[in-house]
Amino acid sequence: MLSKSQIKLITGLHQKKYRKEHKLFFAEGIKVVQELLNSGFTLHHLYTEPGYFNNIPHAKYTEVTEAELKKVSALTTVQHCLALFEIPEEPIAAATGLIVALDDVRDPGNLGTIIRLCDWFGIETLVCSEQCVDVYNPKVVQATMGSISRVNVVYTDLVKYLADTALPVFGTFMDGDTIYKETLPAEGVIVLGNEANGISEAVEKLCTRRIAIPRFGNLQQTESLNVATAAAIILSEFRRG
Amino acid sequence: MLSKSQIKLITGLHQKKYRKEHKLFFAEGIKVVQELLNSGFTLHHLYTEPGYFNNIPHAKYTEVTEAELKKVSALTTVQHCLALFEIPEEPIAAATGLIVALDDVRDPGNLGTIIRLCDWFGIETLVCSEQCVDVYNPKVVQATMGSISRVNVVYTDLVKYLADTALPVFGTFMDGDTIYKETLPAEGVIVLGNEANGISEAVEKLCTRRIAIPRFGNLQQTESLNVATAAAIILSEFRRG
Repeated sequence: MLSKSQIKLITGLHQKKYRKEHKLFFAEGIKVVQELLNSGFTLHHLYTEPGYFNNIPHAKYTEVTEAELKKVSALTTVQHCLALFEIPEEPIAAATGLIVALDDVRDPGNLGTIIRLCDWFGIETLVCSEQCVDVYNPKVVQATMGSISRVNVVYTDLVKYLADTALPVFGTFMDGDTIYKETLPAEGVIVLGNEANGISEAVEKLCTRRIAIPRFGNLQQTESLNVATAAAIILSEFRRG
Repeated sequence: MLSKSQIKLITGLHQKKYRKEHKLFFAEGIKVVQELLNSGFTLHHLYTEPGYFNNIPHAKYTEVTEAELKKVSALTTVQHCLALFEIPEEPIAAATGLIVALDDVRDPGNLGTIIRLCDWFGIETLVCSEQCVDVYNPKVVQATMGSISRVNVVYTDLVKYLADTALPVFGTFMDGDTIYKETLPAEGVIVLGNEANGISEAVEKLCTRRIAIPRFGNLQQTESLNVATAAAIILSEFRRG
């Protein structure tokens, strides 16, 4: 049974300001919630239809109906459970290894997909400009499929971060050198730009290497690639050696 | 001004059965509509706020308000115009070159992204099993960003198609050979599977080459990649040479 104050709390967490205020976010669906439970996030409270979870402390466990879940869900189709987790302290941005940096990526699905890609390709740190969509946005959390627990996402002044790094900074531009012919190092920062506008001018100035994904179509009319698919191709190319 | 019968027609086209019946689909937004206008699709009718289009024949042009667009749009935020186009005759599936085949891909965003990737990588034919989402679904049309006009999408009995082809058939499986070490040919069929279940058993039997995208994370807990990001990596690897 969901109380009025619980409904108010959870629906509030759809918004970033209340997530910040309460230091809580939520995830939905057995698979994602189970991954987050297994991965070191601290459970605040689990709301679930009966029979899906064992071993949750009584004080953090409430059985609810599908109709109740619908009242608080961010999904079109509710998925048996919704769990609130504590937002951990923000990690420190790494200064070594291969790092991905996002310059104003706004779409929750894109951020979620990029986090999954970082996880797949063993990239531990994702640096986000302060204008990027919030990683604890419910749509981002769902799109990560649990990878959110294995990638450190750091929000910072991206221009300052790039100005300070000793690593080479790779930016993707139409006139860049083809990634298929470049020798790509094991350490560096890979910058990906905004969905509509690409990499901003201030960030572009700090890119030390300009790269490009070659296009193979005959007509050469193709739109630029979606930022998440571009990320997939670039990360694959960096890691394949 | 939108008439009642126009509203009924357009809202009907949100559903596949009415798209089939009327042989019409719709697209929204200046950029996508302009791309489709430029690319050989036959315009049935354009509904637009004033001032965005010139040279549309009077009989095919209706000025509407934002509020009217909202009544018929498939978008959360309407984008100034909505155009109905004729669904062309379905092309014949190519038998040569590099071909992508989808085994039951259900998500409109994934199909749209894969069409964009085919366009980028110069792949002219995308073969879809009959259970795949409809290419003229409004969400697919929007996600393609106009690439729908440059890729032939063919719906067919995929098992029969693969049984009949003389080309090698590449399927992605966890136990496949790493794509980074394989010699990948310029001709072949690349099969991508359903979002939840991967490649079906019947299709798996027809795969002549089993390939895999290696994972680089330490913990090895990563979920499989999203089908569209997997497509990006595989197509890049086939084309890079």
